[in-house]
Amino acid sequence: MSQATNQSWGGRFSEPTDAFVARFTASVNFDQRLARQDIQGSIAHATMLARVGVLTEEERDAIINGLTDIQGEIERGEFNWSVPLEDVHMNIEARLTDKIGITGKKLHTGRSRNDQVATDIRLFMRDEIDVIEAELTRLRDGMIELAEREADTIMPGFTHLQAAQPVTLGHHLMAYYEMLRRDRMRFAAAKERLDECPLGAAALAGTGFDLDREATAKALGFARPTANSLDTVSDRDFAMDYLHAASIASIHLSRLAEEIIIWASQPFGFIRLPDSLSTGSSIMPQKKNPDAAELVRGHAGRIIGAATALSITMKGLPLAYAKDMQDDKPPVFEAHGLLVLSLASMEGMIAGAEFNTDRMLALAGSGHATATDLADWLVREAGVPFREAHHITGAAVARADAKGCALGELTQDDLAAIDARVTPEALANLTLEGSVASRRSYGGTAPDRVRQQVTEARRALGLDS
Amino acid sequence: MSQATNQSWGGRFSEPTDAFVARFTASVNFDQRLARQDIQGSIAHATMLARVGVLTEEERDAIINGLTDIQGEIERGEFNWSVPLEDVHMNIEARLTDKIGITGKKLHTGRSRNDQVATDIRLFMRDEIDVIEAELTRLRDGMIELAEREADTIMPGFTHLQAAQPVTLGHHLMAYYEMLRRDRMRFAAAKERLDECPLGAAALAGTGFDLDREATAKALGFARPTANSLDTVSDRDFAMDYLHAASIASIHLSRLAEEIIIWASQPFGFIRLPDSLSTGSSIMPQKKNPDAAELVRGHAGRIIGAATALSITMKGLPLAYAKDMQDDKPPVFEAHGLLVLSLASMEGMIAGAEFNTDRMLALAGSGHATATDLADWLVREAGVPFREAHHITGAAVARADAKGCALGELTQDDLAAIDARVTPEALANLTLEGSVASRRSYGGTAPDRVRQQVTEARRALGLDS
Amino acid sequence: MSQATNQSWGGRFSEPTDAFVARFTASVNFDQRLARQDIQGSIAHATMLARVGVLTEEERDAIINGLTDIQGEIERGEFNWSVPLEDVHMNIEARLTDKIGITGKKLHTGRSRNDQVATDIRLFMRDEIDVIEAELTRLRDGMIELAEREADTIMPGFTHLQAAQPVTLGHHLMAYYEMLRRDRMRFAAAKERLDECPLGAAALAGTGFDLDREATAKALGFARPTANSLDTVSDRDFAMDYLHAASIASIHLSRLAEEIIIWASQPFGFIRLPDSLSTGSSIMPQKKNPDAAELVRGHAGRIIGAATALSITMKGLPLAYAKDMQDDKPPVFEAHGLLVLSLASMEGMIAGAEFNTDRMLALAGSGHATATDLADWLVREAGVPFREAHHITGAAVARADAKGCALGELTQDDLAAIDARVTPEALANLTLEGSVASRRSYGGTAPDRVRQQVTEARRALGLDS
Amino acid sequence: MSQATNQSWGGRFSEPTDAFVARFTASVNFDQRLARQDIQGSIAHATMLARVGVLTEEERDAIINGLTDIQGEIERGEFNWSVPLEDVHMNIEARLTDKIGITGKKLHTGRSRNDQVATDIRLFMRDEIDVIEAELTRLRDGMIELAEREADTIMPGFTHLQAAQPVTLGHHLMAYYEMLRRDRMRFAAAKERLDECPLGAAALAGTGFDLDREATAKALGFARPTANSLDTVSDRDFAMDYLHAASIASIHLSRLAEEIIIWASQPFGFIRLPDSLSTGSSIMPQKKNPDAAELVRGHAGRIIGAATALSITMKGLPLAYAKDMQDDKPPVFEAHGLLVLSLASMEGMIAGAEFNTDRMLALAGSGHATATDLADWLVREAGVPFREAHHITGAAVARADAKGCALGELTQDDLAAIDARVTPEALANLTLEGSVASRRSYGGTAPDRVRQQVTEARRALGLDS
Repeated sequence: MSQATNQSWGGRFSEPTDAFVARFTASVNFDQRLARQDIQGSIAHATMLARVGVLTEEERDAIINGLTDIQGEIERGEFNWSVPLEDVHMNIEARLTDKIGITGKKLHTGRSRNDQVATDIRLFMRDEIDVIEAELTRLRDGMIELAEREADTIMPGFTHLQAAQPVTLGHHLMAYYEMLRRDRMRFAAAKERLDECPLGAAALAGTGFDLDREATAKALGFARPTANSLDTVSDRDFAMDYLHAASIASIHLSRLAEEIIIWASQPFGFIRLPDSLSTGSSIMPQKKNPDAAELVRGHAGRIIGAATALSITMKGLPLAYAKDMQDDKPPVFEAHGLLVLSLASMEGMIAGAEFNTDRMLALAGSGHATATDLADWLVREAGVPFREAHHITGAAVARADAKGCALGELTQDDLAAIDARVTPEALANLTLEGSVASRRSYGGTAPDRVRQQVTEARRALGLDS
Repeated sequence: MSQATNQSWGGRFSEPTDAFVARFTASVNFDQRLARQDIQGSIAHATMLARVGVLTEEERDAIINGLTDIQGEIERGEFNWSVPLEDVHMNIEARLTDKIGITGKKLHTGRSRNDQVATDIRLFMRDEIDVIEAELTRLRDGMIELAEREADTIMPGFTHLQAAQPVTLGHHLMAYYEMLRRDRMRFAAAKERLDECPLGAAALAGTGFDLDREATAKALGFARPTANSLDTVSDRDFAMDYLHAASIASIHLSRLAEEIIIWASQPFGFIRLPDSLSTGSSIMPQKKNPDAAELVRGHAGRIIGAATALSITMKGLPLAYAKDMQDDKPPVFEAHGLLVLSLASMEGMIAGAEFNTDRMLALAGSGHATATDLADWLVREAGVPFREAHHITGAAVARADAKGCALGELTQDDLAAIDARVTPEALANLTLEGSVASRRSYGGTAPDRVRQQVTEARRALGLDS
Repeated sequence: MSQATNQSWGGRFSEPTDAFVARFTASVNFDQRLARQDIQGSIAHATMLARVGVLTEEERDAIINGLTDIQGEIERGEFNWSVPLEDVHMNIEARLTDKIGITGKKLHTGRSRNDQVATDIRLFMRDEIDVIEAELTRLRDGMIELAEREADTIMPGFTHLQAAQPVTLGHHLMAYYEMLRRDRMRFAAAKERLDECPLGAAALAGTGFDLDREATAKALGFARPTANSLDTVSDRDFAMDYLHAASIASIHLSRLAEEIIIWASQPFGFIRLPDSLSTGSSIMPQKKNPDAAELVRGHAGRIIGAATALSITMKGLPLAYAKDMQDDKPPVFEAHGLLVLSLASMEGMIAGAEFNTDRMLALAGSGHATATDLADWLVREAGVPFREAHHITGAAVARADAKGCALGELTQDDLAAIDARVTPEALANLTLEGSVASRRSYGGTAPDRVRQQVTEARRALGLDS
Repeated sequence: MSQATNQSWGGRFSEPTDAFVARFTASVNFDQRLARQDIQGSIAHATMLARVGVLTEEERDAIINGLTDIQGEIERGEFNWSVPLEDVHMNIEARLTDKIGITGKKLHTGRSRNDQVATDIRLFMRDEIDVIEAELTRLRDGMIELAEREADTIMPGFTHLQAAQPVTLGHHLMAYYEMLRRDRMRFAAAKERLDECPLGAAALAGTGFDLDREATAKALGFARPTANSLDTVSDRDFAMDYLHAASIASIHLSRLAEEIIIWASQPFGFIRLPDSLSTGSSIMPQKKNPDAAELVRGHAGRIIGAATALSITMKGLPLAYAKDMQDDKPPVFEAHGLLVLSLASMEGMIAGAEFNTDRMLALAGSGHATATDLADWLVREAGVPFREAHHITGAAVARADAKGCALGELTQDDLAAIDARVTPEALANLTLEGSVASRRSYGGTAPDRVRQQVTEARRALGLDS
């Protein structure tokens, strides 16, 4: 909502209720954002009307030229949006009639605002999804590149935010690659489901004009026209699909943001963020705050909220079009803006972050992180059943804790007191490098496995390796 | 989000990521709405700093004059908001230093942006709640007035949208009065809970300057200063309380809106809405759509979504301030705007609606709506246990249905076949007027009970009756 | 939560906090529902362990036989679930070791509960989606059948719940077919995205045992193993995808439910519901309430709430597994149960509803529903530009309203006063049947268009027509 | 949902749709939890009916004795709940008539299930809120006690999870005291708003029986009867108020849980949790996971989801009662169970946690946390304007960083290069203890201020200090 609009709230009580309501029920303040798509749809509609003989070629050309001029006026900021004309559609149509006279009044033949706005939004969202996909691609490619660079970098792997087993940073980053890969699939599916053209559904029942809906659909780049006109004007599934995909993507980003915030804290000290994505404090001169990461984390709340909002609005609406559905646009616009920002911020952080790999390595050894390796050794080399090996290792950990030493520093005597099958050789193998290198199961953290994931990702994407 | 902002998204890929992110992490685009409150808080802070000797009286006066000038610049639209200065606070402080020199740099002593923004929002929300309360009052008073006028108007009372028992329109409207009454209580409680002044909490730990926080609180009209500085800068309960109150209010309005939409449908035909709150169709010339009611119903989705959004954002944040909390403002601003609009729209509809009372009366008799009265008669006059009376009445209804007549039109023979205790006298009493008048239990639908409710409501409100 | 559990809340203060918490953090109360999938996964895991030489064939057979026995115990209700053993996994493993001794302790080699539970849920949800798809199919087929039967039945088509244009009931029902079609696509996509096997990801880093994850995946019917072990144990996208698909499906059903409730009201009187899906009133003997439809509408709230819940829980979690993720199951279980119920209820209503087609036809003519046809006639036959034709028709409607007659009943004189181009011939054409039959644009409401939609739907589904 | 119920889903396709739906639309599976309240309400109703002459004293006594017996049967687990009887109300009434004959059929006089269930839930929620308040009290008291004990313990205070300024642990804990204090206010307000008795509102319109609703209200401990019968049976505000209070409380707990999880990580190492609230790993023998804290954090998602669910369900419902409203109970039951568990878990953690105060102190000095103190010193002692002092201190921090030393370790030469006003004396004062002790503004972190907060809290609560 613009500042101008906001300030005017102050005047609520100085104007009559009707005028107040009229001003705020008009959607032109936000749906003017669909102007380009509205004109695109109208040109396709006029072209089709001429093809089926409802308009003459001269009328069609006058309309197309008029609309093209209007497009220019809007782009140059010269268009005068009128609130009494309610919405983007009536604003443009009124201006068209101003410009070309009575022929402009023929444009609305065989359509209504119900199918018109449904077309505009679908066109708009198709464009939005393209923008999101481009951002996802940039972030994903940055992630792959960084993962390759850090394929050998050892860091503590956490579960429950407790050091669990050493992993490689490259492996950790490739987990986010997987999320982004699914996000792309989800947006692609959303795009596929919206790929049907509403134009010609008219108000709800179809029209008696002999339209060629296939032609309009094709002209606008849609796969096909929608199959049922009542559903066409009542449906906002595509917006909910988009918002769902955006929600999950924002959740993924919020998880990465949370990690960045934790990693940037002094006790962790894993990461140093680029100055351009941090801010200082107005009172504490030494502060460098991970603001961009916090905004990304916080925005997930608003994006999920936007998805919830539209679901609530749509629930329980009888067919066909109801004005409630006008509230599809603000949540979509808001979620889109926040998601683009979040993706771009994350690209910047991934590109600019400096990792303190010494600190990561040092902490990877804390918390007896190679205890699982000892248990696995007992299974593999000493034939101990896993659950029993797990218990023996637990006893060794307890002893090391009691002595205040690392697991690998236990003595022969310590081991004898635990279980004869734990030999000094076993302990000698518990290096971080050895642990990481050993986890070679498919999808595992071993550096060569991580490189394999990178290679496979690039191959799947058709990228050079 | 303003149009200017929206259009600029198009440029996402034409500018460097850092610049893009900087532009969008700046909060000044939306928090400039807090300018008045920011200046109000700064004046109180400067006054207190002078009182405790941190500023001289001359410095205080220079600051206050400077801020007052800036307020004027903003109101006249002459203030130049700068995105690189990030937020409303730094914009105003920078301008102050421009105007009054080095003294301006002393204003931020003993505070931080964390307590400053918390103060601004509380002041802002206090004002917002006043606006909401005024709207609630207008709607409530309109409701009481209309209820009194329609205290005798009979309409079908529905449960499950099935005609259940006749009620009076006044009674129905007084149900909404009750909801609005609770809404006011809820907003009043929200206002009471936010009535503590954050200024002086500083970044999180308090400050070493010897502030008089009681004085600042008093100057800003707060009941007291907040009690713990860490909580002060981490807390957004007051915004969640506001959003909860707004959600419930919007749910109440959505229920009234749903009823208006159903009542305005041709098959019901109970109500005719004022033209100023209806719109036509771009394709169907005969349409008169209850757009305002639909928007009110739809907006409940966005308001609940806004409440959900902030809850999600706040969940799991460690203390103290985190940048995620900057996302408190857009949901509050959005919910506020939509709720004010919804209340105003509903005031207009209540004031301008015309009720088709003939139609209401005619439908009140459908569906054997006085069947309960027959059952009650059997209990009262014939000593039949209620559950048995209920079964006898059910049989009478079935017989009337089978004959295609109303309950009161059953013959002596019909009754004999059902139960001897159902006499023609019983049926004779089943008029709509009699039914309604009989429901005199406290809170019931009898016209004199409705008038009593109106009188009590007015007395409670201190209004003339 | 079971009654046993609920009652025990009463005892909160009679037991020590630790015991209380232990009892409620155990997940076995709800995750025992995954027992079948847990055993299925363990059998596949043991089979693979034998193939790669970690288990002998004898050990494998002992494990498989033991697990099969346990499955039988569970199915016969003889299994003794233990809360101290925490979850379904440990309960089954402990029982296995009871039965087959030390070999049972070897089963957990090369896996952890993190990948185990991820496998169980995916298997479970795959089954759940199959159930949903079967229900969707039943409802969809019922819808198509009914649409074909009612392809010629005329009813009022509504926008804004105002009579807009006459449509056919078959057309209206095919709008829901479209929604159900998209629902199936959405669930199919969700199923496709979950089609990767987590087993072998182990705790987070993969394992040093030389597992054949391809083999396990294949044995369990998955397309492939998951590609990154850290992501594998951190990911709940598949549950969110399921909940999103369920949310939208429930929104579709809520819209149909809302229509059924409105149609069943006395003023509409379009529909009579089967007794088996209605209930009476404890106080009003004549009532027949559309309870099942109301529950379907209401359940959409809980299903959307469940989707929101999991999104909130996942937001901002650092990698890898965190216990918060245990809260994936209750929302999925709840949404699934409610959606199956809603679908089955709707099947029953569609199959058992009786339509009052006389009433529908009578109301189809109300509200000058053929006004658009007049405007279209003016465009087609008299060459009037659409927007102008719209205005002329508006004037005709106003005149009919003023006279209290239908549009088709205006006289020659009336028409002359409006516009010379509106001839009596024009009005003569404004029949409901003519209007409906004329809307032959692709996807329109004309009976032959509806039959075409039915035919195309059946062909797409491979059903006989 | 009970296990028995869950398993039976498997049978969906083996039973007719009607039977399936009947089984699941019955609410008795969950509303039997209201049995005690249902009986309590019925006893009050019967007592009042006798007082106004609708029942004789003998009838009243028979009913009360019968109900008391039934209460015993339920408590002893001997009551046979019947699904065909639909709900808790009909189950109990049917059993009453079994026991005492025809008199039982008189109980339902002057009421309906609509006001009956509204009464039951209000009674139930009043009890629930009492349980929550007791838990809040225990946690709050534990918090105060711990805060007092740790009033002098120095730890790093964070904003943005970056070390900001040293604070005391007692101060940090008292921030949570403030949140719990507001939570209690919120629940108290919710309890106050539900303190009206629905009984006697009957189905929707009131009743013709001459009830004494004041007497019923008083007998059940309500402040007064509800004022409008239509509103009474349509209203679920009290449940939404409860869910809102529960949401905010769960958000507070989730924040504490997040801190506990971070504090328990190895890099922080601030805290060691009691074994009884931690769990181990099935694969990593050394792990000790903060499961209880993670569940508390995760449950906030489900509690917010429950609040959202009921809001969605209520949105847009026409008056009066609709079956959708039956879905008020599952969200309330779920949220209540999870909140009690979360509070109890947190009590256990607060009582059993061991703080590593050495580690806290050591980290408090990291990140130049006393930089603000230097800036404040410059303002106070050298008369430098705050904003300028902030810049000078920033330069000092940069120099210390460049030298890899602490702020207090800068040399005379370093200082000279920065600003002449920064003297060695200034730096000498930058101790952690000095910093903390200096922050004596009201609500600040100074130990004596914390003790004052503790004292004031105890005084406000009427506790001994």
